[in-house]
Amino acid sequence: MLMEQILTPDDAKNMLDDLSGAMWVAGEARTKALTGTVKKNLEILPGTDTVANDLLKVVTQKIMGNAAVSVHCIPFILHPPKFNKYMEGGEYQEHTDAPWMSNTRTDISCTIWLSEPDAYEGGVLKIGEQAFKGTPGQGIFYDCDVVHSVTPVTSGERVCVVSWIQSRIRDPRKRQLITDFRAWLAKMEGTEMFAEGDLIYSALLKRWID
Amino acid sequence: MLMEQILTPDDAKNMLDDLSGAMWVAGEARTKALTGTVKKNLEILPGTDTVANDLLKVVTQKIMGNAAVSVHCIPFILHPPKFNKYMEGGEYQEHTDAPWMSNTRTDISCTIWLSEPDAYEGGVLKIGEQAFKGTPGQGIFYDCDVVHSVTPVTSGERVCVVSWIQSRIRDPRKRQLITDFRAWLAKMEGTEMFAEGDLIYSALLKRWID
Amino acid sequence: MLMEQILTPDDAKNMLDDLSGAMWVAGEARTKALTGTVKKNLEILPGTDTVANDLLKVVTQKIMGNAAVSVHCIPFILHPPKFNKYMEGGEYQEHTDAPWMSNTRTDISCTIWLSEPDAYEGGVLKIGEQAFKGTPGQGIFYDCDVVHSVTPVTSGERVCVVSWIQSRIRDPRKRQLITDFRAWLAKMEGTEMFAEGDLIYSALLKRWID
Amino acid sequence: MLMEQILTPDDAKNMLDDLSGAMWVAGEARTKALTGTVKKNLEILPGTDTVANDLLKVVTQKIMGNAAVSVHCIPFILHPPKFNKYMEGGEYQEHTDAPWMSNTRTDISCTIWLSEPDAYEGGVLKIGEQAFKGTPGQGIFYDCDVVHSVTPVTSGERVCVVSWIQSRIRDPRKRQLITDFRAWLAKMEGTEMFAEGDLIYSALLKRWID
Amino acid sequence: MLMEQILTPDDAKNMLDDLSGAMWVAGEARTKALTGTVKKNLEILPGTDTVANDLLKVVTQKIMGNAAVSVHCIPFILHPPKFNKYMEGGEYQEHTDAPWMSNTRTDISCTIWLSEPDAYEGGVLKIGEQAFKGTPGQGIFYDCDVVHSVTPVTSGERVCVVSWIQSRIRDPRKRQLITDFRAWLAKMEGTEMFAEGDLIYSALLKRWID
Amino acid sequence: MLMEQILTPDDAKNMLDDLSGAMWVAGEARTKALTGTVKKNLEILPGTDTVANDLLKVVTQKIMGNAAVSVHCIPFILHPPKFNKYMEGGEYQEHTDAPWMSNTRTDISCTIWLSEPDAYEGGVLKIGEQAFKGTPGQGIFYDCDVVHSVTPVTSGERVCVVSWIQSRIRDPRKRQLITDFRAWLAKMEGTEMFAEGDLIYSALLKRWID
Repeated sequence: MLMEQILTPDDAKNMLDDLSGAMWVAGEARTKALTGTVKKNLEILPGTDTVANDLLKVVTQKIMGNAAVSVHCIPFILHPPKFNKYMEGGEYQEHTDAPWMSNTRTDISCTIWLSEPDAYEGGVLKIGEQAFKGTPGQGIFYDCDVVHSVTPVTSGERVCVVSWIQSRIRDPRKRQLITDFRAWLAKMEGTEMFAEGDLIYSALLKRWID
Repeated sequence: MLMEQILTPDDAKNMLDDLSGAMWVAGEARTKALTGTVKKNLEILPGTDTVANDLLKVVTQKIMGNAAVSVHCIPFILHPPKFNKYMEGGEYQEHTDAPWMSNTRTDISCTIWLSEPDAYEGGVLKIGEQAFKGTPGQGIFYDCDVVHSVTPVTSGERVCVVSWIQSRIRDPRKRQLITDFRAWLAKMEGTEMFAEGDLIYSALLKRWID
Repeated sequence: MLMEQILTPDDAKNMLDDLSGAMWVAGEARTKALTGTVKKNLEILPGTDTVANDLLKVVTQKIMGNAAVSVHCIPFILHPPKFNKYMEGGEYQEHTDAPWMSNTRTDISCTIWLSEPDAYEGGVLKIGEQAFKGTPGQGIFYDCDVVHSVTPVTSGERVCVVSWIQSRIRDPRKRQLITDFRAWLAKMEGTEMFAEGDLIYSALLKRWID
Repeated sequence: MLMEQILTPDDAKNMLDDLSGAMWVAGEARTKALTGTVKKNLEILPGTDTVANDLLKVVTQKIMGNAAVSVHCIPFILHPPKFNKYMEGGEYQEHTDAPWMSNTRTDISCTIWLSEPDAYEGGVLKIGEQAFKGTPGQGIFYDCDVVHSVTPVTSGERVCVVSWIQSRIRDPRKRQLITDFRAWLAKMEGTEMFAEGDLIYSALLKRWID
Repeated sequence: MLMEQILTPDDAKNMLDDLSGAMWVAGEARTKALTGTVKKNLEILPGTDTVANDLLKVVTQKIMGNAAVSVHCIPFILHPPKFNKYMEGGEYQEHTDAPWMSNTRTDISCTIWLSEPDAYEGGVLKIGEQAFKGTPGQGIFYDCDVVHSVTPVTSGERVCVVSWIQSRIRDPRKRQLITDFRAWLAKMEGTEMFAEGDLIYSALLKRWID
Repeated sequence: MLMEQILTPDDAKNMLDDLSGAMWVAGEARTKALTGTVKKNLEILPGTDTVANDLLKVVTQKIMGNAAVSVHCIPFILHPPKFNKYMEGGEYQEHTDAPWMSNTRTDISCTIWLSEPDAYEGGVLKIGEQAFKGTPGQGIFYDCDVVHSVTPVTSGERVCVVSWIQSRIRDPRKRQLITDFRAWLAKMEGTEMFAEGDLIYSALLKRWID
């Protein structure tokens, strides 16, 4: 799991302001019909808002250009991100994400907070046993198949960007090993140990990427 | 193997009528030069006929939107379908399909009949030991690497649409297991057993998709 | 490893002439910052030269249409090729290629020589223990993860086209086995042994392609 | 699936005679408690009968020494075979075999008939859609995970030997391909095509064995 | 991870008494020479004490016969267990276990406590972020490649049995999925849903076992 | 490929002396009947000579206890070694080894020379393009599926020990990467970089061993 500043706090807040005129519609739950999982939030439909479109292009660049995301997620395809909003009473009960969305195999789920944490009560992102409430511009990246939820918002408004990543390395255990290897190798930069290790690291990476 | 009504009989017959003005050219066999396999049929070359183009778009939507196809084939990429016609003397001797066609790995082969079964003699689709002659709008989906053939048409005319699917799950045995699992799980919809099983099913599906 | 005439010598020489007006800029090394590997050559930036663009389209067709390349490399995606030039003092020290470049997994590296071998001193392509200096139009295809280098050019000018292939079969040992199988099978063409072997070969190929 | 004469008819019949003094006890069903599958037959418990012990050693040698078994099953471990007997009313309803028995992964199931087919009514071995009733000494080898059953014996007595094979190649589709390859290669013995093909065959076999 | 009563508390305490005359020698650390990891405990060398030998046979039977262990660990090979003792000052710093010990691939590590938790201070088993101190006869089973340690014993004496399991399913994520599937399926026992699910479960299990 | 002193030269020569009374019989070629490959040498049949038996036990210990063999071959099972002798006219034409011998999957082939290199003319071990003639006690370890041969002995006598190793890591490319990793890691012993790297190395090793 990775928690990382994707947008500056100011950029995040400005984004929030820029969305003031956008049209929000009810989000749709994949599994509700089958499992009764409640998803109650609002989304801006893709392509319906020019401002949102432009902002999402920026978000895409910020995610794909982030060094920590590159190391931990090894992104191959980024599903077009979208804004969502949980107002009072909004929630998304425990679920895992669909194995794929359009052409993206959803290996890693991403949430970037835009709202200040004290702008709403509740609305905590729970991932397995852990709970998260980020500050503006912070993003969290976690495996899509871990059960997660957004607890009910009891007051205020929680706006985030969400997206999904198809990683070059689908197996989380392989990806973790590659990330650990790279972090270790980075400590050797500038030493004579680096070059030999880089060949081994690259050979392993090459074996495991899609 | 799946036999499924992809088009309504009326739509299939209308399609046949709409093709009356199209230009048909001799189909080309991949393996004839090497193996002597006879392929003798007619095809409408892609992009040469506006009516055919529009009809094939409809066929594509009907295949990709079909629920049974979704469950049994888990389609990822559909190779652009094409019309073919076997006239008297036409046939396609025993063969398997090429492992890929342009960008589509050909996991599953599909034939949709447009002609009425009594519009022609012969022209049976043989797949391994089994023989099929569908009614207008029916489609059959089967593994491309099973030896199959179209027996000689001895009178009349047999018009079909053919296409190929790259599945999200390439191994037929894995795909079968996933299909069986989903069919079984579907029986639990609305019961308290469903949600837990859906997590297991999704985790397995996620492991096996491309 | 495959050495093959991709362009005719005349086409190669004409290409060299046609590039006389192009703008060359310094090539950038992926790993220099980390490992100190020196890369000192010139490249034509993609999209900056209309003549070069057109020539590279031809090169792409020649590579993808070459029968030996098809058999040995089983190409799926060809990274857009580019021209590079090593002038006196130019070199590229020992390295392996990045595991992927934009959307291409770099399984196989390709160098096509345009310059005459006697147009420059040095500038030998070393791949593992072996050394190569091709004639105009010759191309060499080798696994990207074998350590390779271009030795310093001590006089004259060495112009080549380079590209990278994502193969349908990523594992070099599987690819070799498939290539051997196909070469062996080709010897049976026209005999009664062919058809049965073609089914086995195709089934194996189908198992191993991406 | 393989049907093969493992014992001579005479040896099979003598074996039947030699067992006349053995003690038979009720066989136990693995899955009955859970699924209600009825298994009603008799077995000689391992190690309880010296004559049976000696006969089973012979059976083991005959199975492991059989050329067709070697080609189709590529046996690695043979689970100690055992005799079983279905008397009037005996049956074994539809089931698949346990994934392993003691140290043997049960890839392939084997039944060798000792009784004459007209010595009993019913008692047909059904494997998927197919039905079998062998003659003395004949053995049938089939994948353990195909649903199979022994239909009720309505008169007489049906005595067989059963065993299970852990193959060097667990995946039935890989095993089939290897078997097809070997059968094809065998046709080239004595020709100049053989040696090259044997290298390819061996390399593939080596990749796939446990 | 599984916490399970392997021995009754009384059996565990009696075992402790029975070991009073055994000879304990210093345990040896695999990695100390390389990493400086301190391992300071006592062990009874295999085969040096008849009483210990007999007790370990009982432990082996209890582990292999335990239903929960069977479900969670799917044991294939159990490395001969051994007793160890941490006295005041004893500890085993953070480490992972060797990938194999003699013929056992060490997939799962097992500790069974014999001492009462209040018989010693410290001596906590830490597995990743979690800490455990079991009661007599309790056993804990966890993946060998998670970093774990025994914190220093500051007073008293801590006696345990340790062992390692080679599972039929080596990948912890596959094993977890199988365990979840089986637990879910168990809830359907006696219903008409069971038999169909058992076939799917068995087919999956068969795919994944060694 | 590994060339390593397995026995001291003196031990090797003494072994040669000790074998003076052994009975040698003609070796048998696996593939001759099919491919015409000539194998003409002498072997001591297993179990026929007490002296040889005892010497082979020593050889087994020396191979399995050798540190370089442990690092490069990661041996799991060693096939019982045997002595062989090539006299004038003896040879073993180009072949690869059988994929398995009794219970050993033959991943790595081993030859240990006992004779002095000047004790015979010819008798060179060719492995692919390379040729080897070792000194007493030297052993060479190479992949069994590389084509190899012993060229005709034109005078003198060449005595060796041969054996085969089933490695914990069957794929030669994975094994090489592990060996490279370990060699690199060994250079960090005693530094603070070691412990972190050892965890990564061990996790990778654990993934890849049988």
